[in-house]
Amino acid sequence: MLVYSYEQLVHFSKTIFLSMGCSEKDATLAAEVLVSADLRGIDSHGVARLSGYVRLWQAKRINANPSIKIIHETPSTAVIDGDAGLGLVVAPFAMQVAIDKAKQVGTGWVSVQNSNHFGIAGYHAMMALKEDMIGMAMTNASALVAPTFSLEKMLGTNPIAVAVPAGTEPPFVADFATTTAANGKLEILQRKNESAPMGWVQDELGNSSTDANILKKKGALLPLGTDREHGSHKGYALGSIVDIFSAVLSGASYGPWAPPFPAYVPMPENMPGKGLGHFFGAMRIDAFRPATDFKFHMDQWIQRFRAAKPIDEQEKVLIPGDPERAMEYIRMKEGIPLLDMVVEDLRSTAAVFNLQGL
Amino acid sequence: MLVYSYEQLVHFSKTIFLSMGCSEKDATLAAEVLVSADLRGIDSHGVARLSGYVRLWQAKRINANPSIKIIHETPSTAVIDGDAGLGLVVAPFAMQVAIDKAKQVGTGWVSVQNSNHFGIAGYHAMMALKEDMIGMAMTNASALVAPTFSLEKMLGTNPIAVAVPAGTEPPFVADFATTTAANGKLEILQRKNESAPMGWVQDELGNSSTDANILKKKGALLPLGTDREHGSHKGYALGSIVDIFSAVLSGASYGPWAPPFPAYVPMPENMPGKGLGHFFGAMRIDAFRPATDFKFHMDQWIQRFRAAKPIDEQEKVLIPGDPERAMEYIRMKEGIPLLDMVVEDLRSTAAVFNLQGL
Repeated sequence: MLVYSYEQLVHFSKTIFLSMGCSEKDATLAAEVLVSADLRGIDSHGVARLSGYVRLWQAKRINANPSIKIIHETPSTAVIDGDAGLGLVVAPFAMQVAIDKAKQVGTGWVSVQNSNHFGIAGYHAMMALKEDMIGMAMTNASALVAPTFSLEKMLGTNPIAVAVPAGTEPPFVADFATTTAANGKLEILQRKNESAPMGWVQDELGNSSTDANILKKKGALLPLGTDREHGSHKGYALGSIVDIFSAVLSGASYGPWAPPFPAYVPMPENMPGKGLGHFFGAMRIDAFRPATDFKFHMDQWIQRFRAAKPIDEQEKVLIPGDPERAMEYIRMKEGIPLLDMVVEDLRSTAAVFNLQGL
Repeated sequence: MLVYSYEQLVHFSKTIFLSMGCSEKDATLAAEVLVSADLRGIDSHGVARLSGYVRLWQAKRINANPSIKIIHETPSTAVIDGDAGLGLVVAPFAMQVAIDKAKQVGTGWVSVQNSNHFGIAGYHAMMALKEDMIGMAMTNASALVAPTFSLEKMLGTNPIAVAVPAGTEPPFVADFATTTAANGKLEILQRKNESAPMGWVQDELGNSSTDANILKKKGALLPLGTDREHGSHKGYALGSIVDIFSAVLSGASYGPWAPPFPAYVPMPENMPGKGLGHFFGAMRIDAFRPATDFKFHMDQWIQRFRAAKPIDEQEKVLIPGDPERAMEYIRMKEGIPLLDMVVEDLRSTAAVFNLQGL
């Protein structure tokens, strides 16, 4: 386990993106979005994915110099064509359009087609905070999840992020996959050679399984709720809403046709749209009530929930975003630890471009 | 078990609302919204609740002749003061404002303060369908749910409904509590004297319980996901988002301060806002892409998901809204069965106003 500073990882990632042919501005932004995941403790979405982006670029599925364009709009909405660009760059562009529209008419809603993986949803949602807006971000992704009663994988882990500004308290930032467990949690168990808790995955016959490698054996992740009796139809509905808002509304590819992240997986046949889809929202607080009033009550909301009587005095009730913020604080100070296999992978990625490794 | 026609129950409910002093128009609307729950098989939210509304009116917590007003607005947003009216009347008013704004600027978003229970969220979201819009509805409710790690009940079952139009296929209509099981499902088990599956509720010490009466013994409903390992922090985040959008954004009372539905439960002290809160959204499809294109792809989405290979050939993969629509079809033809205790309760309610029972 080696430890790197935030700046080191941003610099390294930026160099890779520059080598792919990204502009200085895009490479800087992409690196910042990517490493924000490592900083917040969502290691599966950070530099561990850098080589995956490079392979998609090598396979010509990622365009390093996209011409990102608004292709349709109204005062409060837009559809954006990401031109097969890095989602890490397309998403902040789209979120900024949502924010600009909210400045004009109170809210802005942007659906994106023809994009790629955008890193952590939370980064984009949080862009709204400094504008005194509520931010939302979601994306579809390649199908790993079996709906309730399904053997077939039909949906991605389709995350939703919602960021809400507060006053003296830190903001409320929810950012979660619409599955019982995110794929990244499964990957951690795979690396450790450990089994998964019951309820995260099913096997190729649709039976519960604890095999963390089951996705490679025709198994599937389960929607939030795990089974019908515990509300998996709700997790399935949530993942579906993300898919519809991100892809059916924009003209991206949806459901089992969403393009895969691993470049070695062939693209689905008869894709009904272009690339991955995202959906972003921004709501100006003072389009509803004065921001100072809202923040006063949001502080009170947060303080009251934090003070809720816990089951165990050692384990307090948390506010969404607390664990990630605590991690960010630690890793900014102490650095970001990377598994040896991730460091290896980054070194091989550097070698692709004849660059120095980490 | 007695069976009544949809028309009989609407007529009966309307007579009760008229007797409370509602206008002809409001009484008709409230009755239709209320009985739409029975029709769709969500028995807990239909006429079984009528006596509860009457008791709230008797306790002067419901105003039968509210002056429902927009108190703040921008081109795409509004805040509405429900003037303590029936949520069954306030909610359609607010949803119509969202729809009207969407006609003007693409989307409309309305947060409501000073309201009461609004029946099923799905009714309001579905108002958008005939306008070729996506509809959304959510509401906070009295605190029955313990967040992850909490012993204390802090949130209501806070439902979310999203209705999406399709072309030749019936619409996609998701309508679900953000808990593992809705309170209505627990009430059904209480009546049958059966126990609940593990994972729905916790007892007064925070342990898992199967006691369907545990809410009366200081127990709590659990957020969707059930426990930390299975993602209850995601259900907690979803319920919180509903609470914040519905109540913190509008100036309603939030979290554990949300007003209780049973009139015998005293109002919380130091309420930070007015009444219950709701949140509604309407997005015009053609603010994103031509409605015919969207509907073509939505049909394909629905058909593809319906055709997903099932685990068991006897149990096909469903589209959100399928079970409720099937129930509506049956109950429109064959009538709505009511438990004897519900019929009893309706007769006592009629007696309050010296009216004939059912």
